Amino acid sequence: MIDYQAPLRDMQFILEELAGLERIGELPGCEDASQDLVSAVLEEAGKFAAGVLAPLNPVGDRQGCRLEGGRVIVPDGWQAAYDQFRDAGWIGLSLPPEHGGQGLPKLVSTPVWEMWFSANMAFAMLPQLNVGQTEALTIAASEAQKATWLAKIVSGEWAATMNLTEPQAGSDLAATRMRAEPTGDGAYRLFGQKIFISYGEHELTPNIVHLVLARLPDAPPGVKGLSLFLVPKCLLDERGEPGQQNDIRCIAIEHKMGIHGSPTCTLSYGDDGGALGYRVGEPHTGLATMFIMMNEARFNVGVQGVALGERAYQAALAYVRERVQGRDIVTGTSGKAILAHPDVKRMLVSMRSRLMAMRGLLYTAAGWFDLARHHPDAEVADKYRRYVDLLMPVAKGWCTEVGNDLCDEAIQVFGGMGFVEETGVAQLFRDARVITIYEGTTGIQANDLLGRKILREDGVTLRELVADFRETASQLGNQTTLGDLAEALHGQANLLDDTIDWLLAHKADTAELYAGAVPLLHLLGTACGAWQMARLALAADTRIGNGQGDTEYLRGLVELARFYMATQAPQAFAHGHTLRHAGTVLSRFPEGGL
Amino acid sequence: MIDYQAPLRDMQFILEELAGLERIGELPGCEDASQDLVSAVLEEAGKFAAGVLAPLNPVGDRQGCRLEGGRVIVPDGWQAAYDQFRDAGWIGLSLPPEHGGQGLPKLVSTPVWEMWFSANMAFAMLPQLNVGQTEALTIAASEAQKATWLAKIVSGEWAATMNLTEPQAGSDLAATRMRAEPTGDGAYRLFGQKIFISYGEHELTPNIVHLVLARLPDAPPGVKGLSLFLVPKCLLDERGEPGQQNDIRCIAIEHKMGIHGSPTCTLSYGDDGGALGYRVGEPHTGLATMFIMMNEARFNVGVQGVALGERAYQAALAYVRERVQGRDIVTGTSGKAILAHPDVKRMLVSMRSRLMAMRGLLYTAAGWFDLARHHPDAEVADKYRRYVDLLMPVAKGWCTEVGNDLCDEAIQVFGGMGFVEETGVAQLFRDARVITIYEGTTGIQANDLLGRKILREDGVTLRELVADFRETASQLGNQTTLGDLAEALHGQANLLDDTIDWLLAHKADTAELYAGAVPLLHLLGTACGAWQMARLALAADTRIGNGQGDTEYLRGLVELARFYMATQAPQAFAHGHTLRHAGTVLSRFPEGGL
Repeated sequence: MIDYQAPLRDMQFILEELAGLERIGELPGCEDASQDLVSAVLEEAGKFAAGVLAPLNPVGDRQGCRLEGGRVIVPDGWQAAYDQFRDAGWIGLSLPPEHGGQGLPKLVSTPVWEMWFSANMAFAMLPQLNVGQTEALTIAASEAQKATWLAKIVSGEWAATMNLTEPQAGSDLAATRMRAEPTGDGAYRLFGQKIFISYGEHELTPNIVHLVLARLPDAPPGVKGLSLFLVPKCLLDERGEPGQQNDIRCIAIEHKMGIHGSPTCTLSYGDDGGALGYRVGEPHTGLATMFIMMNEARFNVGVQGVALGERAYQAALAYVRERVQGRDIVTGTSGKAILAHPDVKRMLVSMRSRLMAMRGLLYTAAGWFDLARHHPDAEVADKYRRYVDLLMPVAKGWCTEVGNDLCDEAIQVFGGMGFVEETGVAQLFRDARVITIYEGTTGIQANDLLGRKILREDGVTLRELVADFRETASQLGNQTTLGDLAEALHGQANLLDDTIDWLLAHKADTAELYAGAVPLLHLLGTACGAWQMARLALAADTRIGNGQGDTEYLRGLVELARFYMATQAPQAFAHGHTLRHAGTVLSRFPEGGL
Repeated sequence: MIDYQAPLRDMQFILEELAGLERIGELPGCEDASQDLVSAVLEEAGKFAAGVLAPLNPVGDRQGCRLEGGRVIVPDGWQAAYDQFRDAGWIGLSLPPEHGGQGLPKLVSTPVWEMWFSANMAFAMLPQLNVGQTEALTIAASEAQKATWLAKIVSGEWAATMNLTEPQAGSDLAATRMRAEPTGDGAYRLFGQKIFISYGEHELTPNIVHLVLARLPDAPPGVKGLSLFLVPKCLLDERGEPGQQNDIRCIAIEHKMGIHGSPTCTLSYGDDGGALGYRVGEPHTGLATMFIMMNEARFNVGVQGVALGERAYQAALAYVRERVQGRDIVTGTSGKAILAHPDVKRMLVSMRSRLMAMRGLLYTAAGWFDLARHHPDAEVADKYRRYVDLLMPVAKGWCTEVGNDLCDEAIQVFGGMGFVEETGVAQLFRDARVITIYEGTTGIQANDLLGRKILREDGVTLRELVADFRETASQLGNQTTLGDLAEALHGQANLLDDTIDWLLAHKADTAELYAGAVPLLHLLGTACGAWQMARLALAADTRIGNGQGDTEYLRGLVELARFYMATQAPQAFAHGHTLRHAGTVLSRFPEGGL
């Protein structure tokens, strides 16, 4: 069994130095987010994650979930942990005060969610759905609907789900078939089947609120004919309490490679006359609303990347400090822990450098969310909204790919002990494998990045971001000892500018461009990581200069940035080469050659 | 469930065009390996793999193995499949005729073993041990020992194991503690515990022959004090038949992430007076002999990389030709199978290009084995022995890493269906995770490559290999349409020459160099893959020019080479950058920075 301790020092450093916690705390509506309060919140969350959730993680993996006569049985300990989690008010941390939340900025809730996912991802997927559903309902639901449902969702008294996928409609929601027929009194009866519904059924809460994409009888084909419906597991009685069971059945749960503690359900709606539901928002606008929930989910899946990577790193670090094996390659002496081997040290430093790059990007993006939402200057707010939109597919796509790589590397560090299940790193590796898939595969993220986020606006926002890279590089260049980092970051900025030029020049070659979408996503993710690591080094160097803090820790941050530039940054150029050349080959590749 | 069909066309092409089947068939002792016979062998093996072994693969995964009162129970169907496999004579395919084998070249047995591993790796690990043990005993055992044991091992009547690892002795065999005490009549009593012993106990055969590393009472410390012992599960009676049970107990089997059908045993020797064993070879020379078996095993684990990758590729290709989802990015029409999406096509072509690169390298190396063993000119034989020695860690290290990547990519192709267990790609992904670990991790292979294979001889053999790259590049340059490939291959050759120069110039910086060992291994593996793909394109282009064969297939091979150059070859340069810069950062990285 592997332990987990929230990496509070790293989190605080990035919140303060990269993500602008102080600036965010000065935004209207964010005044509660003082440094003291944030420290207290992180510390409490760290205790809960380490003490309550982390020990349950292997239990969930071993036991998994069972479907028994339509009932879904979750692992032992889930109920007690959920009750504690709900009662402590964690679900509402960043949710609207008017519905019972604490209204803290997303910047504050992001490290907290990182902890929940590190400690027990299969568990944390449940309350995460409440957050996403609250975002969607806050924007799209009627006042009456909000009054009826939101307080219970924000508190976690009831659970939430999102119902998109059907057997023939996975990445392509245009193929959705679920039907919604008006009852004549403003409600609807839903018929059809949804698959891959996380926590689609369980008895942890007395009710479950499903948000379901379906088609009205007069719906146009494609995604523009999708409407959104709120369909409760139990209909509410006159007191607003869960009463009669709705016409929804869990008919199967998936046998998955990982996240065994999270039941993935097939839900059948309307086998007995139709499941009663309520339309959320205007007809045929369901996809846009669902995308609010999905965007929230996508960002959080990116956070799962850093979260699983962090736990894998902690496990690997503990192992290499303890396991004695082999002789020192220089002195020939034996008896030292394996961290002394150059290749083992390489793996640990590599893991940590990528962790910090991801965390820098995600927390910075979380701060942008808050600036976009709360900044009083509309132009500033708009700029950060555009930054968030641009980098959402990177935050999801790149951080999940890297998160997988870190779990993989942790197994390699453990060697044979990583391949056996007892040590727990195998679980992380298996759990992580879903994150590049759900809420839109890496390919889907990459297409979004290329088409909607770059080409549609001719790369305008990305150019702005590159200018920020150059600003950081200039600051680095002013520090005598950081010139190498300045040069490396300039190299990444040049690569990005060249890449934008090339993309725009080849805009017409659609198929060839999209064949390079994933390499482009890796390129941009790697470059953004380089930017964050450069900022990290700059901040650490400044603190060293000011005599603030633990010098060895701070020097480590500077060297982590250098290591990133030596190992990750060159890969951005390789991806750039692939982007420019692979599409041409693919476009003439004969089908019979496969 | 996913099917498997042996990729006979690809195998034949590489055997004939890259690995020199005709030349090998002309070697003394290899005359049986005519093209006709080889085709017949591959076809028969393909049928057995597809018909008998492949359907058992998911059964082994689901059922796994059980330990019951010291007995190990293997999955249903294993016994019948083993009986058929043994009776068909597959184990002895490449083994010495004087002990009942067929004596075919390694070049012929390599594609056959690829099939067994593709079809059912957990099963094929069992007979593979007989091959390795035969290699070791042929070289090191006494004539009397050979007469007693070898025929039964070559036929598969008895099973074989290799016993190296102990809890404190994993990668570092110097820490081995197992004791062997002379009985006074030429035999020994063994005491101690071995872990991670594949097929260490089972009832598939009436006897199991363990080869065990242990220390004699007067042994010097370290690896130079290890001797090798043959320790049978059952002692032989006067007729040479398995009789009394030896003092060996299986006290545990591992709960692993994959290869569930292969029991991984903890064996306790000598709890009841000592396990009777027989020394193989001179005292204190055990490691050298075990390395014969290990080298055989390492090459075969490299073959597992291509084998699992091939099955993952076949599954992914079948899926993308069948699964309909989404709209065409150019025309906007829907209803096509997802292979039409540029990113999906990219993944498939990428998988296939890396498969062919690995297969080209492994089969070519198998041919070198045969040349080293059978070529009448000692200088030629020596050259190929040095080639084999140089590239063994690459064949193992690089092909297993790439094999893992292919299984990972197949899951990505399947999306959510890849994360559920029913489709079978999850099993491939889990099974594959062991291959970069067992028989020496990638780090161990990389250290071997850097230290023993390159630095020790100042890069002499690697320079010879680079000259072969340049020869291929020159030939490509003579073909008007392949100039781009010539240029790309020259680039890889230049990178290798520069890398050798740099390594030799920094020979004294041991710790820094070894921090770059794994990047070096990736660099060389990628470059060797580029060389093989260039050779593949050259051969395909020549066949096109001669009007031989299926033009679309052959054009596909040329484009696969181009795709490899566009996507993989640039990564060699990134690894080169890492090699040169990461070590310096690591050497000054503060321990408190982790």
